[in-house]
Amino acid sequence: MQHFDSDYMEGMHPRILERLLQTNMLKSTGYGCDEFCASAREKILKACDAPDGEVHFLVGGTQTNATVIRALLRPYEGVLAAQTGHIAVHESGAIEATGHKVICLPHKEGKISAEAVDEYITAFKADESWEHMVYPGMVYISQPTEYGTIYSLKELEALSAVCRKWQIPLFCDGARMGYALACEECDVTLADLARLCDVFYIGGTKVGAMFGEAVVIRKKDSIPHFFSIIKLSGALLAKGRMLGIQFDELFTDNLYFDIARHAIEMAKRLREGLLQKGYTLYKESPTNQIFVVLDKQQEERMREVTTFSEWERLSDGRLVVRLATSWATKEEDVEELIEAV
Amino acid sequence: MQHFDSDYMEGMHPRILERLLQTNMLKSTGYGCDEFCASAREKILKACDAPDGEVHFLVGGTQTNATVIRALLRPYEGVLAAQTGHIAVHESGAIEATGHKVICLPHKEGKISAEAVDEYITAFKADESWEHMVYPGMVYISQPTEYGTIYSLKELEALSAVCRKWQIPLFCDGARMGYALACEECDVTLADLARLCDVFYIGGTKVGAMFGEAVVIRKKDSIPHFFSIIKLSGALLAKGRMLGIQFDELFTDNLYFDIARHAIEMAKRLREGLLQKGYTLYKESPTNQIFVVLDKQQEERMREVTTFSEWERLSDGRLVVRLATSWATKEEDVEELIEAV
Amino acid sequence: MQHFDSDYMEGMHPRILERLLQTNMLKSTGYGCDEFCASAREKILKACDAPDGEVHFLVGGTQTNATVIRALLRPYEGVLAAQTGHIAVHESGAIEATGHKVICLPHKEGKISAEAVDEYITAFKADESWEHMVYPGMVYISQPTEYGTIYSLKELEALSAVCRKWQIPLFCDGARMGYALACEECDVTLADLARLCDVFYIGGTKVGAMFGEAVVIRKKDSIPHFFSIIKLSGALLAKGRMLGIQFDELFTDNLYFDIARHAIEMAKRLREGLLQKGYTLYKESPTNQIFVVLDKQQEERMREVTTFSEWERLSDGRLVVRLATSWATKEEDVEELIEAV
Amino acid sequence: MQHFDSDYMEGMHPRILERLLQTNMLKSTGYGCDEFCASAREKILKACDAPDGEVHFLVGGTQTNATVIRALLRPYEGVLAAQTGHIAVHESGAIEATGHKVICLPHKEGKISAEAVDEYITAFKADESWEHMVYPGMVYISQPTEYGTIYSLKELEALSAVCRKWQIPLFCDGARMGYALACEECDVTLADLARLCDVFYIGGTKVGAMFGEAVVIRKKDSIPHFFSIIKLSGALLAKGRMLGIQFDELFTDNLYFDIARHAIEMAKRLREGLLQKGYTLYKESPTNQIFVVLDKQQEERMREVTTFSEWERLSDGRLVVRLATSWATKEEDVEELIEAV
Repeated sequence: MQHFDSDYMEGMHPRILERLLQTNMLKSTGYGCDEFCASAREKILKACDAPDGEVHFLVGGTQTNATVIRALLRPYEGVLAAQTGHIAVHESGAIEATGHKVICLPHKEGKISAEAVDEYITAFKADESWEHMVYPGMVYISQPTEYGTIYSLKELEALSAVCRKWQIPLFCDGARMGYALACEECDVTLADLARLCDVFYIGGTKVGAMFGEAVVIRKKDSIPHFFSIIKLSGALLAKGRMLGIQFDELFTDNLYFDIARHAIEMAKRLREGLLQKGYTLYKESPTNQIFVVLDKQQEERMREVTTFSEWERLSDGRLVVRLATSWATKEEDVEELIEAV
Repeated sequence: MQHFDSDYMEGMHPRILERLLQTNMLKSTGYGCDEFCASAREKILKACDAPDGEVHFLVGGTQTNATVIRALLRPYEGVLAAQTGHIAVHESGAIEATGHKVICLPHKEGKISAEAVDEYITAFKADESWEHMVYPGMVYISQPTEYGTIYSLKELEALSAVCRKWQIPLFCDGARMGYALACEECDVTLADLARLCDVFYIGGTKVGAMFGEAVVIRKKDSIPHFFSIIKLSGALLAKGRMLGIQFDELFTDNLYFDIARHAIEMAKRLREGLLQKGYTLYKESPTNQIFVVLDKQQEERMREVTTFSEWERLSDGRLVVRLATSWATKEEDVEELIEAV
Repeated sequence: MQHFDSDYMEGMHPRILERLLQTNMLKSTGYGCDEFCASAREKILKACDAPDGEVHFLVGGTQTNATVIRALLRPYEGVLAAQTGHIAVHESGAIEATGHKVICLPHKEGKISAEAVDEYITAFKADESWEHMVYPGMVYISQPTEYGTIYSLKELEALSAVCRKWQIPLFCDGARMGYALACEECDVTLADLARLCDVFYIGGTKVGAMFGEAVVIRKKDSIPHFFSIIKLSGALLAKGRMLGIQFDELFTDNLYFDIARHAIEMAKRLREGLLQKGYTLYKESPTNQIFVVLDKQQEERMREVTTFSEWERLSDGRLVVRLATSWATKEEDVEELIEAV
Repeated sequence: MQHFDSDYMEGMHPRILERLLQTNMLKSTGYGCDEFCASAREKILKACDAPDGEVHFLVGGTQTNATVIRALLRPYEGVLAAQTGHIAVHESGAIEATGHKVICLPHKEGKISAEAVDEYITAFKADESWEHMVYPGMVYISQPTEYGTIYSLKELEALSAVCRKWQIPLFCDGARMGYALACEECDVTLADLARLCDVFYIGGTKVGAMFGEAVVIRKKDSIPHFFSIIKLSGALLAKGRMLGIQFDELFTDNLYFDIARHAIEMAKRLREGLLQKGYTLYKESPTNQIFVVLDKQQEERMREVTTFSEWERLSDGRLVVRLATSWATKEEDVEELIEAV
């Protein structure tokens, strides 16, 4: 039996574990004020070509989304997001729990367009009742999206431009950022993100770390007292160095990118193999997530050979499932799966 | 120049003003613990045929919606509502400010169906990720809706049944309740509402009062400490008797119903007149709100003779406007308007 | 049986009622955008000598406190207040419901001192753990206080100076403002408040109006989108003109001040009379609230002749009660009460 | 230079690290639904003699406090706590951010008494204005307290009894629980806590784990949908097994207790050594935290030889500092420190 449910089924990349072993008995102060965090921050800012930026380490994605959104919005503002956005669907109302509305925009394969944002805000400003409505106070996107698709540089530039036109921040959820960056199809770099977004994060949990998300704020001090907002959001790790060590290692010798590249290669092979075996892809997603539509027979077969994530039951009875690869996916497992289905 | 912008453009019905005059110098305790409130409560429960119910008086609609929803939901729950629902669009995020998501359902002329609710909840329960999603914790409807349409008894019974099936409360926003009740087309009574909803309110502000909404809780004590929830929501009126006096008068000799009936008659006449003059109605709404689609020329003409509420600019350039009648609308004003446009 | 429970036991001052009569059938737009509100705003700004200020009308005190505090604070900030402050004790947690802590300072007869504020903030800034603590983000005072005492001009200037030193706003709850202004002992004027506070309000509910609080923001536009914050707080009155009419009348020919002066005179007479009859005052409060300590026998006697508000049961068994006068208190009632006890 | 700042300065206990190594490549599902969590839950419930209980794993203390308190309270309720309680002082307002007030009670060395709780609630119920006040909805204590003191079984039984009398839950913050349990002076066991509290947690972060707090709910399902409340609080770890592995190891062969016992022994030795060297203890705390009062000269000396945590600057200029021991404290370090100061 194989397991392609998600990209966070194992512990952590061996190199991170190695670093934990090496550093375990060293003493350091808490809350991210240690040398490991300092070093990781420096490497990340360098990788982002963002010398004026600021980096904070949080533990998980939902937590990071809620903390950043709480920090960026005023009470009368909400966050624009795709209807399919993680914050709109799968965070148990964590954003609303901070008092803010998620304003849903129509999506295309998980992406929203600059035009849609512009139209929404234009209509809002023109509405006779705008003062009785939730203000669009920021834009949330995810790279890659929940559907495994990626924003092109052009799309990202357009989104950034429209946000700057309306003077609202652009925030990018990068829980799986590595898998976008490692895609051939992706022409967006970390430096582009740091230039075009006001805040974004580089996900660790799903890209080889035990846990951890590195929030990059484009302009230092642009969010006053973000540290305390992290604390009040219950998102401050006491042994903060655990985050520093992980990200320091991930940003040493391109580990973060190597991890992602391996997963992308495995996904590519799996995608090809499934197509050869007559399976139908639900969406064209170039990242490490493969969405397959299974008819009754295929579903039964698949259930016998691997675990997976159920995505959606179509009205015709077919099941959309998600398979995911990671740093830990072995080539032989992929071949075995292709063979078996 | 006439004014058909809304149904709350004048002070209050003369009979209410008369009662204020009569009672002004009497002394009473605050916060709704006075004899006027007691009397009004009794009359309302009687009109609702709800001897086991409970009545609370609040000041305005958005306030009432936020207070009731806060009282009914647990932190992990949200409220199901039509995409066009007042709480979803025109309350500046008051519901989200209490920490809860408004889960939008597709609407038909402002109404949601029992089927749509049932499907949503069924899908939620079946979803692999349901524990990561906002739970549908209650259903919000408005009678009449924001589009001036009304739920039939059959529709309401179906909604009530589906809520009971899933054991979640049904809450009805009745900011303009009177205008539904007074419609020929409406086969729903206050007693039906009290039987089928868990909580609903009878709007005063838009039906002849200065202000005030009477919340009817079907089963006494089913919302523990609702008084304190009103207080913490900033919705407790110090001189609570002002609410009692108004509702006591509104529920004396059918005043509430007479007010609504007059407005409905005026609206009917206006609707007929406009149709005769070649105007196009945007929606079939039987209540006191008339939605008219104006072409360029009609818009100019209309602007010369009356003020109105702008509803929506259609893509073909035509403007949808809302005209509203009330207790204070004079027959001669209606005729004059018809004549003039 | 007499009633000295509070200063909001009757309807409204006859002159306000008269204005309601006169204006009842006029039509106006909602939400405070009418001519009555405009006129009232102008008069209030003039009375405050605050041409650069901004006025908003809300319905009640708790609501106003929560709305203003929500508007002024960032998520990591709390509000400094006297332990006895209304927001700290008697608002059912309305402030916490907006997500903010009320940081309690020791009080002296309901007042906090500039020194106490300065010491608190100094200690906060010096604390090794300040980033893990709630930031003092504003100061809340009430004039007169919950104990009926009043801040002197010197005290207010010192509080204002310390707030400006630390760059946090000073907010004054003026639910009973008139009674402070009308006291001989009070050397603070509306113009002083408008100069020294960043936001304060002039209470109507307890000074002759049916309801209503006029919020004065010292510097126009210093709170962005306060209108929408009022809306999302459920504090926006649809028939906003009801607030405009009342405040317009209260600020015509000094009505607001005359109402207060009458109450103060009645309170003075009552205080003298009670002292002559051997009663003990609990606190020296010069305003319209009289705090009396009653032994067993006095308590019984008092209960026979008037209703009152119970304040506190002392450990020696004596009861502190509050008697309050208002615009509606008749001289003969006061004499009768003094006679009877 | 030595480091006695806190008990979370190193990585994790070597046995936990060893388990991470062994299990790293195993695959498991996320969010705490894995076999490691299952095993850890079983061991913890056994150690607590709580077969009807329920265990959840969260990441950090502030997060756990906010999540549990949010889950237990209704909107009109607050949490009773010592003035010195962590939730009252050092969580950046995380509790208020969930909408609830922390109601402070006077403390004695960080502890509150059953009498104080009883008196508070009795007074609340007797207060004429109780419906305008925040309801005491639960009691929060910490074992050991923020001052390193411990509740005796008798004290805990009394607190539990008073909570049951008033039908409110008792919640115990056990961020440093191990250090209480390991004290000779402590007659409270995990089974006592599970019997007397409604919810409590066993801290990992400060007792040898990398991170993690194990929440024990006395009665299964008594908090509906706690999983989703964890999620919406941003407290759900994707790779939940990391928590399971750590707690499984901590509750294997008494590791948790051994870790604590070692720290207590080291603290005892350090305490004795400091007393011998003429130092003054600020408080009698039997746990792993040592509070020392330093005069100018002692402060200088101490700064030369070790880092520590500044607690409070006394008015006479002396500094109270906290030294903490842990599983990682070596006997030689303690001796060296005693020697050096």
